[in-house]
Amino acid sequence: MKTLNFVLDVDGVLSTGQFLYSSDGKAYKIFGPHDADGLKLLKDKISISFISADKRGLPISQKRVQDLGFDVTYVCEQDRYQYVEQHFGLKNLIFMGDGLFDVPILRDCSFGIAPANARKEARAAAGFVTESKAGEGAVLDACLEIQKRFFPK
Amino acid sequence: MKTLNFVLDVDGVLSTGQFLYSSDGKAYKIFGPHDADGLKLLKDKISISFISADKRGLPISQKRVQDLGFDVTYVCEQDRYQYVEQHFGLKNLIFMGDGLFDVPILRDCSFGIAPANARKEARAAAGFVTESKAGEGAVLDACLEIQKRFFPK
Amino acid sequence: MKTLNFVLDVDGVLSTGQFLYSSDGKAYKIFGPHDADGLKLLKDKISISFISADKRGLPISQKRVQDLGFDVTYVCEQDRYQYVEQHFGLKNLIFMGDGLFDVPILRDCSFGIAPANARKEARAAAGFVTESKAGEGAVLDACLEIQKRFFPK
Amino acid sequence: MKTLNFVLDVDGVLSTGQFLYSSDGKAYKIFGPHDADGLKLLKDKISISFISADKRGLPISQKRVQDLGFDVTYVCEQDRYQYVEQHFGLKNLIFMGDGLFDVPILRDCSFGIAPANARKEARAAAGFVTESKAGEGAVLDACLEIQKRFFPK
Repeated sequence: MKTLNFVLDVDGVLSTGQFLYSSDGKAYKIFGPHDADGLKLLKDKISISFISADKRGLPISQKRVQDLGFDVTYVCEQDRYQYVEQHFGLKNLIFMGDGLFDVPILRDCSFGIAPANARKEARAAAGFVTESKAGEGAVLDACLEIQKRFFPK
Repeated sequence: MKTLNFVLDVDGVLSTGQFLYSSDGKAYKIFGPHDADGLKLLKDKISISFISADKRGLPISQKRVQDLGFDVTYVCEQDRYQYVEQHFGLKNLIFMGDGLFDVPILRDCSFGIAPANARKEARAAAGFVTESKAGEGAVLDACLEIQKRFFPK
Repeated sequence: MKTLNFVLDVDGVLSTGQFLYSSDGKAYKIFGPHDADGLKLLKDKISISFISADKRGLPISQKRVQDLGFDVTYVCEQDRYQYVEQHFGLKNLIFMGDGLFDVPILRDCSFGIAPANARKEARAAAGFVTESKAGEGAVLDACLEIQKRFFPK
Repeated sequence: MKTLNFVLDVDGVLSTGQFLYSSDGKAYKIFGPHDADGLKLLKDKISISFISADKRGLPISQKRVQDLGFDVTYVCEQDRYQYVEQHFGLKNLIFMGDGLFDVPILRDCSFGIAPANARKEARAAAGFVTESKAGEGAVLDACLEIQKRFFPK
């Protein structure tokens, strides 16, 4: 049984946080290398879920996260804390986020992780800041740290 | 009544300043995370408007700014100072810009803000330079600073 | 009469040098802010031309350069030196380039300019290296320097 | 006869490693300048091949590599070492890679090269780390170093 939950934000964690707009709206998000390798390392050991507050870009996030073999749930910023607490509990929760609204979760969960280029408020609240930026391997960094801390051989 | 006006340039302030060209012309602009959160913090307290001198890319800028709940007006670089002075006055104006043509406005308005990666001429003229680059949270930095200076609790 | 020629490479000088590929081939190039302002400053004082060795991406470069009001000529890397010498002469030539093949021109022209992120070989051969990277204002930096050196008030 | 094999990974070596997703999936990869110049320098002296573990993005990688005049073979990460050993041998192999799965090959081949922004594990295992990042000339750096070491005049 997987007793640990690893919940990740999508934008600014798995993606670089940046997106391309045409005159028709949000069209593309930018993702990077290495992160798929990290998630593979952990997927049989812990439960991995993604959340996103980006309604407009949700179909893009869904496509990417599903291609990686996981699911993403839309939760608006204001409801994020409550959603995470109710669905996963804070006690066995590893949370990775980059924004202002992630600060209370990063502080209250059992292990909070922020990418190198997260908001400084998020970095200050996290228990671990990755060496890599989002979209440049931050999620792999996080997975390697989780493995080291929670699954030492 | 909102007595303060916050006027922002789009390219190089809300966007990274970069754009993608195909053989059909300007197709995409690159925007980033965090800035929507900042504008939400201020929108009930001050009047927020966007201007842009990019005629060719205006439909893209319009789409993005409207998705954020604001409007953008086309004003060419040469007319920018006069336009801002006439429509908002310089006295209660917070202005955020990044280019050569923004220098006189940044200097003469009540509070001039430049992103970390603005032209050095703009940074020198601004009263505040954000820690983040454009398209990486510069507008959120600006909004947090405005809140601290003009709306301390 | 304009006696000075300013010849610029496109990729890695006006563009960031990077391009987007789909399974159909080269689709987009990335350009940036500020450079249009610089070219406007000089266009009535010197003759400005662009060259490019990127055959596959030429329609994209053409569209961008033409939107700026100039022309671009395809010249392969091997013929670049000879082409520039024959069409402009080296004596009254200001040249801006970023690659290995630009080195001899940068060295032999009257004023060679390289962007901050040009190949180190090009930077070493240039008489002036811009503070900004390509696609982040390198061409504006170059234009301001040209104005200062050749058209002091 | 070409006795040396130069095998390169595509993502994070020739490309920046980043890719653009729409709601339809992986659409674009980002490549950069200079690398084509480097491959031209070596193509008559050594045998050059590309491999990629990115199944979904393979048509994009194929298009780019074929436009450069080479071929790319799909090999999943787990089989990479064995594939390279069987098809090229490790003795006359120059290998350029950036990821976790490249570490054993980088260590065991005759000359291992990693881009400046490769995973630190790959950089530690490589005999040479390029000054440039992937998609910003890392492959040209590698080619110049190979020329210097293996084909001094």
